[in-house]
Amino acid sequence: MTDQLLDVVSAGVRAYDLARELRIGMPQSPNHPPFWHVVPRRHGDSVRADGGSAANDMITTGTHVGTHIDALAHVSQDGALFGGVDAEEACIGGRYVQHGVHTIEPMIRRGVLVDVAAHLGVTTLDGDHEITLTEFQDALNAQQTEVRKGDVVLIRSGWGAKFDEGQAFVGGATGVPGIGEAVARWLATQGIHAAGADSIAFEHLRPGAGHGLLPVHRLFLVESGIYIIETMNLEQISVDRVYEFTLVLAPLNIFGATGSPVRPLAVVSRG
Amino acid sequence: MTDQLLDVVSAGVRAYDLARELRIGMPQSPNHPPFWHVVPRRHGDSVRADGGSAANDMITTGTHVGTHIDALAHVSQDGALFGGVDAEEACIGGRYVQHGVHTIEPMIRRGVLVDVAAHLGVTTLDGDHEITLTEFQDALNAQQTEVRKGDVVLIRSGWGAKFDEGQAFVGGATGVPGIGEAVARWLATQGIHAAGADSIAFEHLRPGAGHGLLPVHRLFLVESGIYIIETMNLEQISVDRVYEFTLVLAPLNIFGATGSPVRPLAVVSRG
Amino acid sequence: MTDQLLDVVSAGVRAYDLARELRIGMPQSPNHPPFWHVVPRRHGDSVRADGGSAANDMITTGTHVGTHIDALAHVSQDGALFGGVDAEEACIGGRYVQHGVHTIEPMIRRGVLVDVAAHLGVTTLDGDHEITLTEFQDALNAQQTEVRKGDVVLIRSGWGAKFDEGQAFVGGATGVPGIGEAVARWLATQGIHAAGADSIAFEHLRPGAGHGLLPVHRLFLVESGIYIIETMNLEQISVDRVYEFTLVLAPLNIFGATGSPVRPLAVVSRG
Amino acid sequence: MTDQLLDVVSAGVRAYDLARELRIGMPQSPNHPPFWHVVPRRHGDSVRADGGSAANDMITTGTHVGTHIDALAHVSQDGALFGGVDAEEACIGGRYVQHGVHTIEPMIRRGVLVDVAAHLGVTTLDGDHEITLTEFQDALNAQQTEVRKGDVVLIRSGWGAKFDEGQAFVGGATGVPGIGEAVARWLATQGIHAAGADSIAFEHLRPGAGHGLLPVHRLFLVESGIYIIETMNLEQISVDRVYEFTLVLAPLNIFGATGSPVRPLAVVSRG
Repeated sequence: MTDQLLDVVSAGVRAYDLARELRIGMPQSPNHPPFWHVVPRRHGDSVRADGGSAANDMITTGTHVGTHIDALAHVSQDGALFGGVDAEEACIGGRYVQHGVHTIEPMIRRGVLVDVAAHLGVTTLDGDHEITLTEFQDALNAQQTEVRKGDVVLIRSGWGAKFDEGQAFVGGATGVPGIGEAVARWLATQGIHAAGADSIAFEHLRPGAGHGLLPVHRLFLVESGIYIIETMNLEQISVDRVYEFTLVLAPLNIFGATGSPVRPLAVVSRG
Repeated sequence: MTDQLLDVVSAGVRAYDLARELRIGMPQSPNHPPFWHVVPRRHGDSVRADGGSAANDMITTGTHVGTHIDALAHVSQDGALFGGVDAEEACIGGRYVQHGVHTIEPMIRRGVLVDVAAHLGVTTLDGDHEITLTEFQDALNAQQTEVRKGDVVLIRSGWGAKFDEGQAFVGGATGVPGIGEAVARWLATQGIHAAGADSIAFEHLRPGAGHGLLPVHRLFLVESGIYIIETMNLEQISVDRVYEFTLVLAPLNIFGATGSPVRPLAVVSRG
Repeated sequence: MTDQLLDVVSAGVRAYDLARELRIGMPQSPNHPPFWHVVPRRHGDSVRADGGSAANDMITTGTHVGTHIDALAHVSQDGALFGGVDAEEACIGGRYVQHGVHTIEPMIRRGVLVDVAAHLGVTTLDGDHEITLTEFQDALNAQQTEVRKGDVVLIRSGWGAKFDEGQAFVGGATGVPGIGEAVARWLATQGIHAAGADSIAFEHLRPGAGHGLLPVHRLFLVESGIYIIETMNLEQISVDRVYEFTLVLAPLNIFGATGSPVRPLAVVSRG
Repeated sequence: MTDQLLDVVSAGVRAYDLARELRIGMPQSPNHPPFWHVVPRRHGDSVRADGGSAANDMITTGTHVGTHIDALAHVSQDGALFGGVDAEEACIGGRYVQHGVHTIEPMIRRGVLVDVAAHLGVTTLDGDHEITLTEFQDALNAQQTEVRKGDVVLIRSGWGAKFDEGQAFVGGATGVPGIGEAVARWLATQGIHAAGADSIAFEHLRPGAGHGLLPVHRLFLVESGIYIIETMNLEQISVDRVYEFTLVLAPLNIFGATGSPVRPLAVVSRG
């Protein structure tokens, strides 16, 4: 008995890697414990009688650094998480038993890229640019892509190209381009499952404002139950104009965490 | 233009989660830094003027704990990694630039479950049981499954059910069931891409011998370039007799690491 | 102008090291993040043009592992810390601003060893042995030592010798010898400043009871404002019968922590 | 029988805290894993039947951040540590068994402050200021202090006041004032035991040069076996003109580490 999915996969697929490499010193929000990776044991440190040796690692990291997903437990408003769950009661023994990242089902879903930067003909939107609903819908139309219920929608501002520049990616004084409440509200109305972007905080950050106000986080995580994926690498799917694809994403199943590093893939049939 | 893969996915797929939940205190090899997860900032610790608040996490962990993949840089023999790469030179600035986990391409491949425990009619093989080539091939035949070039082959001994018992899962005095060199050599000959199991070290550990000798690790990682996945949860695909599937696995892209926690999925069309 | 202290020190002092070495795998309470030390950068990893090179470390650890001190913020009773401070309000932004380890003044004080094991003529008291007030006072009398206001009192049960045995040190089924409420109450009445012991939890742990009930912790930390020092090495001062000394102890000044690893010294004039 | 030291201590001493508080975000060299402190378990997370509750911590940190001491294993020159020890062979199993911080004896020694900034009448020396031997000796003379064999010599440039400013303390473009080879050579000739300063790298860093060349580290750690203490707080002993004192310093006894956070004290008899 053959499996339809396996048949298609066996015929050939291409997987676009939508994650940034995890390296010490990569840009991240200072609010989170930084990523650090060390190799405590190297080859040769301890050699077995038969000449074999093993090396290993230790990592320490926040869960909201690098390419990562926000669980619903990440943000609260007036003391409540999504669905009116009491934010204090959701935390049992120091872990978010309710709405933690362990409650996010691995995703194999329709993914959509909305390449706003390409549509506007720029390498990257400016830091003070909030993507308007008109711009967003025009980009969708130009791409001939539609957003459907259950989709994972990835929004490209072009800002992601700054990741390799370091601190510039974080924004700060320049601000960071992205959507605001208008586009978020429209997306929530479409019933999307998750949304991602190539920037550090997904949504527009006003110049100099930092992460002080994050209305889209509230709208998505608290009011709508929509997951947010940040610091994605959307460059190659932009170049290849891959606007619809199968989005595969499986967070680490960390019991009680508010997020997880992820390595999402955009997969398409070859040829 | 529609994408064949997306069409099949849209028609409905089921993803089996092959990873164990990451929890403090879960059984692991004492050779590796333990998994630890903490929530430094909780809701209410810092509330913005608009009533919003965010919680976050810190994790510290070895890369060979929980469900994880071994990169080729993990094991050396007589000072050499796969392909004759000098194990000392592969490590630049304290990181395995060659054969590190960042060199593993995300996998979307044919996956095969070889359910040896089910075939032998036991809940779990005994700790002193090395799976013979005959047993292995008989199980394959009974399942009417074949192993092909490029496959990811998952071997179930049933030992994985001990994961929730804690220390028993590690083995030690009891040993841990699994394949030995005979089966490994045969699998390498088939040209498989990766192999996984529901036990802590993938291969058979003799009672009382610990991780002192790991011939299959050498044969796969050093001699054949075959990745190894450990501490998998193969219980549900065993119950549902899912012997062929699309295996999806994307390690964290940690530059220079010898392994990574992973959350592999076995995906099948519904229906 | 000469300094009296410096004159005495210059004439010669001997410092007894009362701390255990910090090593991966040393016995500790499973309630706390384990001690782990790695060397990310070794000599040769990065050599400067002039032939110089530097190696460095990373440690990750609980603050209540190895030889350590408990700040008053460590234990609460019915929601209150020492002095009736609300335990919830003492924690601001995820840190114990009140009664944290940063509030412990470095100690240079009279120290007293009460060598109960030596007095009773045993290598170590048994795990089920709660030191009675009579035993305690008899030991003090036999030593011709008195306890004074402001002292740091170190109580030796002999159990510390098990530190190198690993898990046996933790106790568990055997219990761990130590003082109970009777001795603690008497010590609190004398107005001591801090107390230490050569065992994992300072006070007597009943066989099989674990750390479920710690009445002396409550009596000292919550009711009396007396600091507790655990997992000390009191072997050499026992051998040398050093019953009175200058106790020097300076915790790491970690803002908001509930404890800190320490390396206390017992210092005496030579000759 | 009374102890002379204890008599003097009992008569009253004052301990100056020479360490900086450990806080997330404090300035440090980017070469080292940053200090991070979290409280995983708070009061109330787990309350025992009797109403008792305990809070605890986790820290992760480099050993060369905050106020810390460099072990001789920290720096090598042309492949060798102090005493001609082969830097590669000194590292066994990933730890510096030779010259690690566990080989530093706790210090109770004559300490000397050389307050160069005060002598030159400035709040802080400029970043491009290398303290000359003449300036250094003039400061000593003005203070009427002499340096003796076995001393711990603390050099104040005034730069330490920038610690609370954050990044300015690190130096970078501005450079950091401190001694160079001339003063170091003279100090080594006097046979001092250790030396410390109120700056991040102890010695003078040329503007824009970073930590690329550290000749004093080589001269002290590799050629002379003199320990280095960095990021000290020398403000209060400067204000109080405490030029001679008993220096007490006990590193954490981390087996095989190249350094340790410390909390050194300058202790004097009270009036």
